[in-house]
Amino acid sequence: MKLKDKDIVSVEDLSKGDISKILETTKKIDEGDLKADMSGKVLANVFFEPSTRTRLSFETAMKRLGGDVISLNSTQASSISKGESLADTVRVLEGYSDVIVLRHPKEGAPKMASQFVEKPVINAGDGSNEHPTQTLTDLYTIWSEKGSIDGLKIAILGDLKYGRTVHSLVQPLVEYDIQLYLVSPSQLSIRRSILEDLGKKSGEVIQKASIEEIIDKLDVLYVTRIQEERFADKEEYEKVSGSYEINKELLDQADDDLIVMHPLPRIDEISPEVDGLKQSKYFDQSKNGVKIRMALLELILGDNDGKRT
Amino acid sequence: MKLKDKDIVSVEDLSKGDISKILETTKKIDEGDLKADMSGKVLANVFFEPSTRTRLSFETAMKRLGGDVISLNSTQASSISKGESLADTVRVLEGYSDVIVLRHPKEGAPKMASQFVEKPVINAGDGSNEHPTQTLTDLYTIWSEKGSIDGLKIAILGDLKYGRTVHSLVQPLVEYDIQLYLVSPSQLSIRRSILEDLGKKSGEVIQKASIEEIIDKLDVLYVTRIQEERFADKEEYEKVSGSYEINKELLDQADDDLIVMHPLPRIDEISPEVDGLKQSKYFDQSKNGVKIRMALLELILGDNDGKRT
Amino acid sequence: MKLKDKDIVSVEDLSKGDISKILETTKKIDEGDLKADMSGKVLANVFFEPSTRTRLSFETAMKRLGGDVISLNSTQASSISKGESLADTVRVLEGYSDVIVLRHPKEGAPKMASQFVEKPVINAGDGSNEHPTQTLTDLYTIWSEKGSIDGLKIAILGDLKYGRTVHSLVQPLVEYDIQLYLVSPSQLSIRRSILEDLGKKSGEVIQKASIEEIIDKLDVLYVTRIQEERFADKEEYEKVSGSYEINKELLDQADDDLIVMHPLPRIDEISPEVDGLKQSKYFDQSKNGVKIRMALLELILGDNDGKRT
Repeated sequence: MKLKDKDIVSVEDLSKGDISKILETTKKIDEGDLKADMSGKVLANVFFEPSTRTRLSFETAMKRLGGDVISLNSTQASSISKGESLADTVRVLEGYSDVIVLRHPKEGAPKMASQFVEKPVINAGDGSNEHPTQTLTDLYTIWSEKGSIDGLKIAILGDLKYGRTVHSLVQPLVEYDIQLYLVSPSQLSIRRSILEDLGKKSGEVIQKASIEEIIDKLDVLYVTRIQEERFADKEEYEKVSGSYEINKELLDQADDDLIVMHPLPRIDEISPEVDGLKQSKYFDQSKNGVKIRMALLELILGDNDGKRT
Repeated sequence: MKLKDKDIVSVEDLSKGDISKILETTKKIDEGDLKADMSGKVLANVFFEPSTRTRLSFETAMKRLGGDVISLNSTQASSISKGESLADTVRVLEGYSDVIVLRHPKEGAPKMASQFVEKPVINAGDGSNEHPTQTLTDLYTIWSEKGSIDGLKIAILGDLKYGRTVHSLVQPLVEYDIQLYLVSPSQLSIRRSILEDLGKKSGEVIQKASIEEIIDKLDVLYVTRIQEERFADKEEYEKVSGSYEINKELLDQADDDLIVMHPLPRIDEISPEVDGLKQSKYFDQSKNGVKIRMALLELILGDNDGKRT
Repeated sequence: MKLKDKDIVSVEDLSKGDISKILETTKKIDEGDLKADMSGKVLANVFFEPSTRTRLSFETAMKRLGGDVISLNSTQASSISKGESLADTVRVLEGYSDVIVLRHPKEGAPKMASQFVEKPVINAGDGSNEHPTQTLTDLYTIWSEKGSIDGLKIAILGDLKYGRTVHSLVQPLVEYDIQLYLVSPSQLSIRRSILEDLGKKSGEVIQKASIEEIIDKLDVLYVTRIQEERFADKEEYEKVSGSYEINKELLDQADDDLIVMHPLPRIDEISPEVDGLKQSKYFDQSKNGVKIRMALLELILGDNDGKRT
């Protein structure tokens, strides 16, 4: 299975074998065993919605590989498309670049774009649909910290209703032999349709209202932010805001080998006192975002299929 | 004739020989026969007006050559110049860069800038005056598709009154032995002063109100957009908007070797059904914009005068 | 004394020996004697306040050294930090980059940031507090033009009350054996607390109300702009605006070897007729800003401690 020239628009396009290959290539990059040369190659970073972390981690990844980047930010992107179709925009950009990284508020936009251009398209987030490179970052963090994903007890805590990150992550996660706890205030529990989907996979899924009763069993605690901007009603937000906080006291009850993850930014879901603990891995996770994208770019654009050079 | 260190502020600064040299150097780049090395060199992309295509194609060109780019976009540019003269701004930027690419709303600004700095200045569009690198892109597209410019029958269709692209293109075009048809709604016909100018050159110029009667004679059909933003009166715009559309039915009457060009973005002047036809060349034309700028940068900044290396 | 991996948050962190080393490394770069290779290294340009000159000179410096740059401008920076602490933001950026260049409206922000990350942090201006790389640029300009700083008669003219540039510059300057004239309208004279501080150093400090009476004695005339944006009361600004102008007539009374400096942008403090005089050095000074930052980056990130390679 080769990823060369492949579009990455959904995690569902990736087989378990593809994911393993991406994780292993990332490990080689992490260990300095893979030196790719993208000099003279250009990545187009096309963001129809604001983004800082995803945008900069793609940019950093390409530049660390020796390649270069051209950027359309959300303001510029809306100007280029004044009256122009997305299909035209990406066909113009295809003439400038070797790979197109696209974030778009409309679900399915990266898929559509990929049908109009021959160059590979990578989905950097489409509406509340998917964010496959964040998911790969999360999987890599778990895998590299724990040595394996199978056999783990993993809790995802927070806003399971609106979070794009969570929706993308649970799908490939339950393909592994894991025990998955979904922990949230009742107003923010995962949608029934997704839950039904998960039920058909190998992993076991258990819903909980509180993290305290399972904290001592966990290998991985994945915390998310409650995103104020997703609530139509401010009062509804106030009700759930601050309803959980990971702090030293809670982690005292957890295994020393527990890893605490968070896609960032965090507000007050994780107390700053946790930052200094061995269990905190969210800044490493953020750093892994660059490595996974280096691996992806190498597999998609490079000539050696992720092999050592 | 050497272009080394030369300013490119107007197509009129370029002799027919200069243009030939630029086209031939572009061809070498297109064929992979020229490898320039701009590493350590910096292009300053200075845009006092928004631009996406021109800005990104200069940026891509420089990066593909191994050089790098610093950018002032229109918002930043207006801030740098808060109370500061353009002369000061470009002298500061000259201290940072090897070549200055300047777009400015004021006609003649690139010419003025070039008098204050020693480094070469390239006009990336000054008001409704000139856009020389777009013109070179257009000439290259015709020349490379047709093998020659002399002897061709070329129609330019659309807004001939306000379009900067058209004004810049017709001048060098009529230096060749061509038959030029200017086709537009009467409200948008070319200004009399330009027409008189063209009359003195070797090419023949014929004005037409409709494309249908000449479509079967043409080698090149250059379509432009009617730019709503140039109309003071919205009602006037409505009158001419949508007054022509290139579609499959029309092109059925044309020669198979006709090429259809457009500087993009297009709105509805060319039906999407044309995109799949062999005759459509507008996305290639857009891509040529990068190649022509690579050639220009190589000729202006490089050490080998565009020779094979 | 090694600068490798050191933060540059204040000029006061730099010993006279450090400064000498930075100036000498800059000279090597100026003379083409030092070739650093930053390829694959990434500088994060993080600006919580708008900046064009400082931002672009850091960017140019890194790119001339073969490294690359990722940028957060002031709009993006305010978005990344929506609810996120600066400590979190810089820890995320540390995962992407090798060095963080930070401008922030809050005094002390770069110092604070440097305590949260292991990668070096360079202060690119914090409120009205410090701007150490501008100061180094100024010192290098004086030193390279005059061969030495000791023994010089230097006047600083203009807004000595609000100017961050002046506050940062006078401190290291009076460590040298110089005669320093501070010349300003009485409303804009230097704060008493700074003056008392200066009194303890080796250089002699003399306050003057007019530049005319000392112009014939000077080796260096450093002119600053009166910054309208710092005045709460527009009427107060009008009173002092235009109260001095350096022109040809004034410079006729000065030594031929006088050098005229200005951190730019200038409005009307220096007449354009001065630009053509041998004495004008402000555009060279601006250009030196790139060289000093190349030297700093080489000393902080490079492997050879500024030695010839």
